[in-house]
Amino acid sequence: MSKGVEWAAHACAVLAPLWPDRGLSLAALAEFHGVPAPYMAKQMQALAQAGIVKGGRGRSGFYALAKAPAEITLLDILKAIDGDEPMFRCTEIRQNGPCGSKPEDCRLPCSIAAGFARAEAAYRDSLARVDLVTLNRSVAAQLGLDKIMSAGAWVAENLRSRQ
Amino acid sequence: MSKGVEWAAHACAVLAPLWPDRGLSLAALAEFHGVPAPYMAKQMQALAQAGIVKGGRGRSGFYALAKAPAEITLLDILKAIDGDEPMFRCTEIRQNGPCGSKPEDCRLPCSIAAGFARAEAAYRDSLARVDLVTLNRSVAAQLGLDKIMSAGAWVAENLRSRQ
Ligand code: FES
Ligand code: FES
Repeated sequence: MSKGVEWAAHACAVLAPLWPDRGLSLAALAEFHGVPAPYMAKQMQALAQAGIVKGGRGRSGFYALAKAPAEITLLDILKAIDGDEPMFRCTEIRQNGPCGSKPEDCRLPCSIAAGFARAEAAYRDSLARVDLVTLNRSVAAQLGLDKIMSAGAWVAENLRSRQ
Repeated sequence: MSKGVEWAAHACAVLAPLWPDRGLSLAALAEFHGVPAPYMAKQMQALAQAGIVKGGRGRSGFYALAKAPAEITLLDILKAIDGDEPMFRCTEIRQNGPCGSKPEDCRLPCSIAAGFARAEAAYRDSLARVDLVTLNRSVAAQLGLDKIMSAGAWVAENLRSRQ
C-alpha cells in the first residue's frame, strides 16, 4: 500500500469538520501534516479525481470535501489513492499442466481464488464501515478537548471559504 | 501480493491428500502446475522455511506437507510467501506539523491506523478459516469425480514415499 493513503486519510479527517463550504489550501494541508507540498498535492489530486474532494486550483484556491463526511469511508480513500485492483491475482494455474481443467469448466472461480476474494471482501467491508464522521468521533475521543481546541484554532486561522 | 502465492497454495492443495508420508518431487510439482521448476522451487523453499512442507533435497527427494492439512491455512501460505508485514504502514504523521501530538500522547494507535488494522485483522481471520481440508473439500465439489480420478492417477504415477 502506498504511503499516500495515510496522508490522504489525515487530510480528509481535517477537512471533514469544514464541509460543505470551507476548506484549506494545499499549502496549509501540507504544513498541518508536516509533509512536502508536492507529495500532498499528489494525494489531493487523486482524491479530487475520485470525487472525494474538490477545488484546489489557483492561488486563492482551496480543497474542500466534495460530499458529506458520512458518505466518505476509509475504503473510498484507499481506492482513490491505490486503485481498485484485487490483491490476489488468479492466473488460472488450474488450467495448466497434464491435469489442467478446460476453460469451459472454469466458469466459477477456483476455490483458492474464492478464499482470497472472500478475505478481501471482509477487508473492504471493514474499511467501508469507517466513514469520516465515525473516524473523527474516535479521533476526538483520543485527542481530548485541549488538543482539538488548539488544532481548531490553527485551522480557523488558515481557513478558506466560498464567498 | 506476489504471484507465487497462487502457485504455493495450489502445490499445498495437491500435497494435502498425500500427507503424512508421501509427496511429489519438485519436477512433478512444476509439471503438474505447468510452471517452470525454478519458480516452483522458490515457492517450495519458502513453504519449507515456514514449516509448511518438508523435504525436497536430492535427486530422489520429494516435498511433503510438514504437518496435518487441517493445520495449514491460506493465511499460513500467504505469510510464508509474502511475509508478515501489515499492508498499512503508519508513519505517525499525527506527530508532524504545528498541531502535532507529542510522542507520549501517541501510545494508542491513531484512529486511522486502527481502522486499517481492524480491516487487516478481518482479512487475515478470513484466510485463517480456510485450512487445506476445507479447501480441498470445495475443490473436490467443484472439480467433480472424473477430474479428480484422472488427477489422482497422474499423482499416483508420480508419487514418492518414505520407504
Ligand atoms: S487457478 Fe488461480 S487460484 Fe486456483
Ligand atoms: S498517524 Fe499514522 S495513520 Fe494516523
